[in-house]
Amino acid sequence: MNLKRCATATALILLFLAPALAQSPVRADASRMESRIKALSQFGLNANGGSDRVAFSEHDKQGREYIIGLMKNAGLEVRIDAAANIIGRRKGRFDDRKPIVFGSHIDTVPNGGAYDGCVGVIGALEVIELLNENKITTDGPLEVIVFTDEEGGLTGSRAFVGDLGTEAQTVVNNSGKTIAEGIRFLGGDPGRIAEAARKEGDIKAYLELHIEQGGVLESKGLNIGVVEGIVGIEWWEVTIEGFANHAGTTPMKGRRDAVLAGARFALMVNEVVNSLGGAQVGTVGKFVAEPGAPNVIPGKVTLSLELRDLSAERIFRMYNMIEKRAIVIADETGTEINFRHLDVSAIPALTDEGFKSAIEASAKELGLTYQRMPSGAGHDAQDVAKIGPIGMIFVPSRGGISHAPAEFTSAEDMANGASVLLRTILAIDGKE
Amino acid sequence: MNLKRCATATALILLFLAPALAQSPVRADASRMESRIKALSQFGLNANGGSDRVAFSEHDKQGREYIIGLMKNAGLEVRIDAAANIIGRRKGRFDDRKPIVFGSHIDTVPNGGAYDGCVGVIGALEVIELLNENKITTDGPLEVIVFTDEEGGLTGSRAFVGDLGTEAQTVVNNSGKTIAEGIRFLGGDPGRIAEAARKEGDIKAYLELHIEQGGVLESKGLNIGVVEGIVGIEWWEVTIEGFANHAGTTPMKGRRDAVLAGARFALMVNEVVNSLGGAQVGTVGKFVAEPGAPNVIPGKVTLSLELRDLSAERIFRMYNMIEKRAIVIADETGTEINFRHLDVSAIPALTDEGFKSAIEASAKELGLTYQRMPSGAGHDAQDVAKIGPIGMIFVPSRGGISHAPAEFTSAEDMANGASVLLRTILAIDGKE
Repeated sequence: MNLKRCATATALILLFLAPALAQSPVRADASRMESRIKALSQFGLNANGGSDRVAFSEHDKQGREYIIGLMKNAGLEVRIDAAANIIGRRKGRFDDRKPIVFGSHIDTVPNGGAYDGCVGVIGALEVIELLNENKITTDGPLEVIVFTDEEGGLTGSRAFVGDLGTEAQTVVNNSGKTIAEGIRFLGGDPGRIAEAARKEGDIKAYLELHIEQGGVLESKGLNIGVVEGIVGIEWWEVTIEGFANHAGTTPMKGRRDAVLAGARFALMVNEVVNSLGGAQVGTVGKFVAEPGAPNVIPGKVTLSLELRDLSAERIFRMYNMIEKRAIVIADETGTEINFRHLDVSAIPALTDEGFKSAIEASAKELGLTYQRMPSGAGHDAQDVAKIGPIGMIFVPSRGGISHAPAEFTSAEDMANGASVLLRTILAIDGKE
Repeated sequence: MNLKRCATATALILLFLAPALAQSPVRADASRMESRIKALSQFGLNANGGSDRVAFSEHDKQGREYIIGLMKNAGLEVRIDAAANIIGRRKGRFDDRKPIVFGSHIDTVPNGGAYDGCVGVIGALEVIELLNENKITTDGPLEVIVFTDEEGGLTGSRAFVGDLGTEAQTVVNNSGKTIAEGIRFLGGDPGRIAEAARKEGDIKAYLELHIEQGGVLESKGLNIGVVEGIVGIEWWEVTIEGFANHAGTTPMKGRRDAVLAGARFALMVNEVVNSLGGAQVGTVGKFVAEPGAPNVIPGKVTLSLELRDLSAERIFRMYNMIEKRAIVIADETGTEINFRHLDVSAIPALTDEGFKSAIEASAKELGLTYQRMPSGAGHDAQDVAKIGPIGMIFVPSRGGISHAPAEFTSAEDMANGASVLLRTILAIDGKE
């Protein structure tokens, strides 16, 4: 039979399989996942209980060896691409089809946590274990991927979509190595980086399970976050120029106090962002007053403005409101407020509508609660969105904490995520 | 005749003299003062046009030599006391009376201005020149004083009132020398510092002419500020603890943003200080947000609170209002706000009521406009107030600028100040 007829037949098989799974759904093994997360966390465990597994470090290399071992034991065909991404392939029944790619990363920030990207990698391996245990062969091939150096600037996923130029490879990350040196250290080949790139249409799907890194799911008592997209991020540096003067001899009325203007600015940003319904966020994270002495009226404040939303249009709408109100603040405080748009923006990356529905259906069938939500943090998926459809599944982060030793996701929550990932992969695999 | 009778006779003479002065009042020589200010400014003149005549520097020594020369030419009997204060004495008719002391300082902050304390020293010398030219001998002796290292912590005036301990002498000032080394460098003797001290009742008056260092006189078009006192200063370090979190994944509602709390705090301080009538001031000059990254919600803000007023009671009344309202801010922002009172407080030093009237009368007789005002900045006079009655005369600072190369007071304004100083000295000298 030809490929098309075969696919149709498989889809029919899956139609039979799906209700079977619903009756007695395949569920991830929470204790296996937890013991693997624990084992992985040993590579770079520090005195605070945090993970120091910065990309390109010796600990990173050791953690990757551990994962490669698990992949091989699970029967995956493992290769290291030119960007040092680890790719473990599982054959499909029709192996020349486009692969469904899923995974995340195992590198951490300095003194990071044990969950972050690791849950997505261990979850991806769990999917393979479950497929093996249940003797399920998918129609198309599957690729479990561990992206290189996510925390240092999405290095592996940028290379995966052909966006890692030679200049970007000269950047030194927290390991002390340049990106190029680090890639070589992990077995990649910076000279042939283009070979790591996939083109638009090369993959059927990219799916990523990840901890939420926020507190929404926990606070609402939900199991699964159905990610609507990865928010766009825009940064501005805002400079407020007042007039530095003697704090004793300058009457209150004659002052052009940059801290007072900056204070009004920070509160105004908060008001503007809160004035619109939705999940957008806005932050003044940096606030530097000069000269910064207790007895001098501050003449200058430099602050950061960060806006994030799934809609770029909405980000710039908020920015326009902020700019307008800043003019009033400058006028009323006798200061000058200037904005400089920084070149670190990330455009929003929306997830595939069909994938979101598949994730929701999977969660529902497993009796799990869920809600749609944006990802406020960046992920490898946002790069991959440039060449193919993406989907992301969030599981709760205790206290919303991440990138810190206190980061925690329960074994049950991790297993819920992997169970949803499995069903979602099967649903996508079953569709033309 | 005995001393008492003699004094009465002198008072009678002055009663005659006063109307004479009113008819054709003795006025300071503006061009002489200006040329002396210019000459003094050459010692430590920098490329910005600023004065680098930090106490204990080579330039300070040279500037002092210049002043000593002027003193000697004017017939003063010059000595350097153990704290290296320069004292130029002019005999009185009844020379065992308590002296009227007047002067200021000639040291500058790094990259300071040419006027600051120098106007008070050149003004004091001008008084001597005018007395000489008009052949006036006062009843009591006069002492022109140039205090050592005012900018580094009122070193000379602290020693003058017996408050410069041995520990304070180990502090290194901007010259790189310790106070003790610096005093020795200028010809003082740190081992005999106690000999520089005057006791309560040792002086009849201390008078200081100084630039305003603020913009009140200029903005109101007034010639003379009649200083009501030197304000008390209290400092607090305020710590605001929120919760640092991911600026992308933490919804606006769940945040405990220390910058937002700090912003409300700074605006609240401004409101509280402005809510009371009077000349009190309050400043948040330091504002440090941590971790200070654009993509992290600030978990901590450390800021300074400074309050100044002529009444210590009023300072603490404002503080209590601020503390109360801070509790509300902490509550509403989910932060914790703590105050630490710093040990750098200065108690208010009020000027003598009779001296203020004498200054006002002098200004009026000279056809000058004037107003009572606090001194928001610290001065040697505030130390001297511990052992005797003080008076201070302010002249306008252009743009309210001081401690900077742009500091400026016109020759006419300086001369007005010196003319008022002369009349005030004569009025005080004429009173028992």
